[in-house]
Amino acid sequence: MAPDRPPFAFTVTARASGPHGIARCGRLTLPHAVVETPVFMPVGTQAAVKALTPEELTEIGYALILGNTYHLHLRPGEALIARAGGLHRFSGWDGALLTDSGGYQVFSLTGLRRIGADGVQFQSHIDGSRHVFTPESVMQVQRDLGADIVMAFDECAPYPCAPEYAREALERTHRWAARCREAYDQAGRRATGGWPQALFGITQGSIFRDLREESARALAALDFPGYAIGGLAVGEDAPLRCDAIVWTVALLPFEKPRYLMGVGTPADILDAVARGVDMFDCVLPTRNARNAQVFTARGPINLRNLRFAEDFGPLDPECDCRVCRRHSRAYARHLFRANEILGPRLATYHNLYFYHRLMAGIRDAIRADRLEAFREAFLQQYRRSEEEEQNSDEA
Amino acid sequence: MAPDRPPFAFTVTARASGPHGIARCGRLTLPHAVVETPVFMPVGTQAAVKALTPEELTEIGYALILGNTYHLHLRPGEALIARAGGLHRFSGWDGALLTDSGGYQVFSLTGLRRIGADGVQFQSHIDGSRHVFTPESVMQVQRDLGADIVMAFDECAPYPCAPEYAREALERTHRWAARCREAYDQAGRRATGGWPQALFGITQGSIFRDLREESARALAALDFPGYAIGGLAVGEDAPLRCDAIVWTVALLPFEKPRYLMGVGTPADILDAVARGVDMFDCVLPTRNARNAQVFTARGPINLRNLRFAEDFGPLDPECDCRVCRRHSRAYARHLFRANEILGPRLATYHNLYFYHRLMAGIRDAIRADRLEAFREAFLQQYRRSEEEEQNSDEA
Repeated sequence: MAPDRPPFAFTVTARASGPHGIARCGRLTLPHAVVETPVFMPVGTQAAVKALTPEELTEIGYALILGNTYHLHLRPGEALIARAGGLHRFSGWDGALLTDSGGYQVFSLTGLRRIGADGVQFQSHIDGSRHVFTPESVMQVQRDLGADIVMAFDECAPYPCAPEYAREALERTHRWAARCREAYDQAGRRATGGWPQALFGITQGSIFRDLREESARALAALDFPGYAIGGLAVGEDAPLRCDAIVWTVALLPFEKPRYLMGVGTPADILDAVARGVDMFDCVLPTRNARNAQVFTARGPINLRNLRFAEDFGPLDPECDCRVCRRHSRAYARHLFRANEILGPRLATYHNLYFYHRLMAGIRDAIRADRLEAFREAFLQQYRRSEEEEQNSDEA
Repeated sequence: MAPDRPPFAFTVTARASGPHGIARCGRLTLPHAVVETPVFMPVGTQAAVKALTPEELTEIGYALILGNTYHLHLRPGEALIARAGGLHRFSGWDGALLTDSGGYQVFSLTGLRRIGADGVQFQSHIDGSRHVFTPESVMQVQRDLGADIVMAFDECAPYPCAPEYAREALERTHRWAARCREAYDQAGRRATGGWPQALFGITQGSIFRDLREESARALAALDFPGYAIGGLAVGEDAPLRCDAIVWTVALLPFEKPRYLMGVGTPADILDAVARGVDMFDCVLPTRNARNAQVFTARGPINLRNLRFAEDFGPLDPECDCRVCRRHSRAYARHLFRANEILGPRLATYHNLYFYHRLMAGIRDAIRADRLEAFREAFLQQYRRSEEEEQNSDEA
């Protein structure tokens, strides 16, 4: 943490003109890093981005990663992490951190759960133990974890979802957001470790325009330092998701960062950036890597495919990452077939490098006011090859 | 490969005096590296040292690692590796390589096997497929893999073992050694890739002095560039192993490197170095790491132990490796409990660093003619704590 830095600031540094005039570049100043947006945040669910070290994330260029409040609460527990000096120090991560609120996990991972006015009672997916999350307890957990950015406790409605249920979940989310805000203010907007934290509100509303707009207005009225768009990437198709983003962004304050939670594929990110989103997180590059799927400029490929058995070229011929400079598809395929830990390691490093480079390309394109041209060129190359692979898959 | 380097050379550079006058330092010149001995070689069974990248091995200081002929023959096969340009290029490893002969694996890992005069028929432990290893075929596999040092095909007798069986296995090993030597000479002592290879003979003889001496004499007569001591670390106790080393080393030529296969713990290595051994390999540091056991100056510890839950100090307080400088026992314990790949990664890196530093300490001690003092100081600290842990283990 650099104590001479303002605790939290966001500045829009470039704006696209024309039909995509809403896309922008920004600079996010946090206690542990300064981050250029649009930014992709790797997911470090259990205090580690799976298979990688903090040094590697820094080497790739990441300065802001995500931790999951639900998982860290269950194991090793926020009390232990607080005694370690917070999640940064516990995990050896020098950069900035964002923790989610656990809302998504409580509603998607746990079995038995009871939603009450006060919060949610749920059972751990690890050992069945009973826990309660309330807006106040979630804020306390996140204070102990000590991330630079913390998230309000929300209810993520499933998809599809009846409008009545979506409204009920939305209103609960708004009441909880106000309580999170209150708890956050009362705690001096600081982590247990003493440094400042920024609390982002989460908008919901499923795919219903009236609910999305109501949510954006309600959250904006609470004046958060940043806003997330939640409840998407849960099964809806891309045009519906784009609509929900547009409805929400239109009513969020221009000068605050906008974070689309859990998104997504390169195409999804390009769609959302064009609609004004600044921040993203997704398990796709890391989870797919562990299943041998790597992203390339010519589309994703699965390294287990027989056609790579003697492909001695790099994972992605257009990539200059440490892995692509040294290792071949044939070698990586062998590692996956032989269940070598190095397989997921190499694929994860490359995939996060690919995402980082994609975001850098997006930022450059916005600054040069050619985002749409960038998007078309990227997707034309990316999508053709996906089809090629589907036609020749034999593995 | 540096073409201006002599293909293979070994020079004794320092000798201890006194009761341990037989210990020595040496310099091993190979096509892909110059290596100071006594040296420990990490095991890269399936074309990878489990969990680590080639860059990390180089960073720690390793310049010579081992690959397993049996495993690589089964998957991905030596033909594919030859087409990739050999095992160095296939695995992205710039340093030197040694491949074993597969003898140990054929006799220990496979189910059904038939030993004939010509070789061994066995079934793959992966898919049950049938294969035959003969001295000639094993030399061909190792030519295709292209390691800097290749090993003669041998029969590793089990322990305990009747003297009659040990003699039979020994005589077969000697006949096979002569055939390996013949095949090696006929192939121009070169890898399929064109660079020179050094063929080491393997002595056997279980724990019987007459057989060990007969084996050392028989192999020495075949004039190999180096000699291994095989058939140890198979269950015999340390004094018996030390005897077998002494009997063998006494009859091996002074000016050739001596390689004790599959050994071992720090104490085992110290014992063997004092008796004139130059080279070691063992899965202990890497395999134990994956089971959360890390080596420390005060003995091995298991990171899963409850007493490390809030131990925010480094894995080994006396270690300055990349892992110990950044990560705590509490964090590493959390990673193992949460089944994070990063756990085995960090433990493997540290353990191989520990072994590398141990060997550097041994070499310095020999040069300063204080090996026995080094050994005593190391073991006094190392062993006391092992007992402490055993007394307090609760995990």
